[in-house]
Amino acid sequence: MKKIITINRQFGSGGREIAKRLADVLQIAYYDKALINQIAEKTSFSPEFIAEASETMNFQPLVFANTFASNLLSPADTIQIAQTEFIKEIAEKEDCIIVGRCANSILEDTAFKVFIYASDMDTRIERCYVKVPADQDMPRKKMEKQILAVDKQRAKYHSFTTGQEWFDMNNYDLCIDTSKMGVKKAVELIVCGYKLYFAE
Amino acid sequence: MKKIITINRQFGSGGREIAKRLADVLQIAYYDKALINQIAEKTSFSPEFIAEASETMNFQPLVFANTFASNLLSPADTIQIAQTEFIKEIAEKEDCIIVGRCANSILEDTAFKVFIYASDMDTRIERCYVKVPADQDMPRKKMEKQILAVDKQRAKYHSFTTGQEWFDMNNYDLCIDTSKMGVKKAVELIVCGYKLYFAE
Repeated sequence: MKKIITINRQFGSGGREIAKRLADVLQIAYYDKALINQIAEKTSFSPEFIAEASETMNFQPLVFANTFASNLLSPADTIQIAQTEFIKEIAEKEDCIIVGRCANSILEDTAFKVFIYASDMDTRIERCYVKVPADQDMPRKKMEKQILAVDKQRAKYHSFTTGQEWFDMNNYDLCIDTSKMGVKKAVELIVCGYKLYFAE
Repeated sequence: MKKIITINRQFGSGGREIAKRLADVLQIAYYDKALINQIAEKTSFSPEFIAEASETMNFQPLVFANTFASNLLSPADTIQIAQTEFIKEIAEKEDCIIVGRCANSILEDTAFKVFIYASDMDTRIERCYVKVPADQDMPRKKMEKQILAVDKQRAKYHSFTTGQEWFDMNNYDLCIDTSKMGVKKAVELIVCGYKLYFAE
């Protein structure tokens, strides 16, 4: 069986950076935007459309989507089915890290499921400010509002797609707060957990 | 600064066993029942009364309890104040592990705060059955009901005492599901996290 790590993360928690570093340390494949491109190929939707799908579309739970009814499927359903199939395919093919896309639910019985969060909002705001151009005016309050809005959308997408709560530790094997731990230490801790989880 | 690990845990998750094993591995002090005995000495209540306090009493939030009004304090308030003072005292004295008693909230800025849970109810039921005498009739449904009742009480006690949610990852640095990981691996993972958390 392949060793898969799924990473779900709060916006501004450092989750994506952690996933990339993990892939480097463990020398295994990393699926994030590459996953979207592959789904685009399978569905004939553009990568941009798929990336935005989770923020703009009215999702139906996966249980109502099946290939028998493929002619009746909405674009959202089509993307979800392709995403599920593709995630299952790569999970059979190679050890890898998959960021977001409800992979924790799709691979709930086999993957090492990690959730990255930051209980301290200030550390999330600081992390997001690094990516804001120096000449752009972005008040802290507005930044905080945006961070919470992205989280809310991720939670909604996860809930509609899987029927599970996104911010509920029951859906993960390991949850790490990066507020004090930071990104580098979180990577080391996940490496430790990954080795233990898949050890005989 | 002393290195403190606080352990909060779902009933039947293996949290107390993990805490004891951790104390052995790290060769540091372990406070669970010993803490109750110390609070008994400070308050003149019996250890049994204190142990049961969180299950039978109507708690008031700590913010309303202060020494100025000590003559007006209920037994619950008296216990909470003694508990808070004693936990702060031992946290200044020695590296240690503290199980429950809202220590994660009392030491929220300094301790390495761990939550142990088991998302799979069957593993919790199995763990609890080990402690049931062979001649005692205990249907699975009844056992599950008891497990959920203890969790509910711990959540209520935590919420009333600290104003924080017990089963909310925001109140911990690390949350570990023991359903698949098991007790021994969880101990190794916490040791790893503990070293990283307190490393320079």
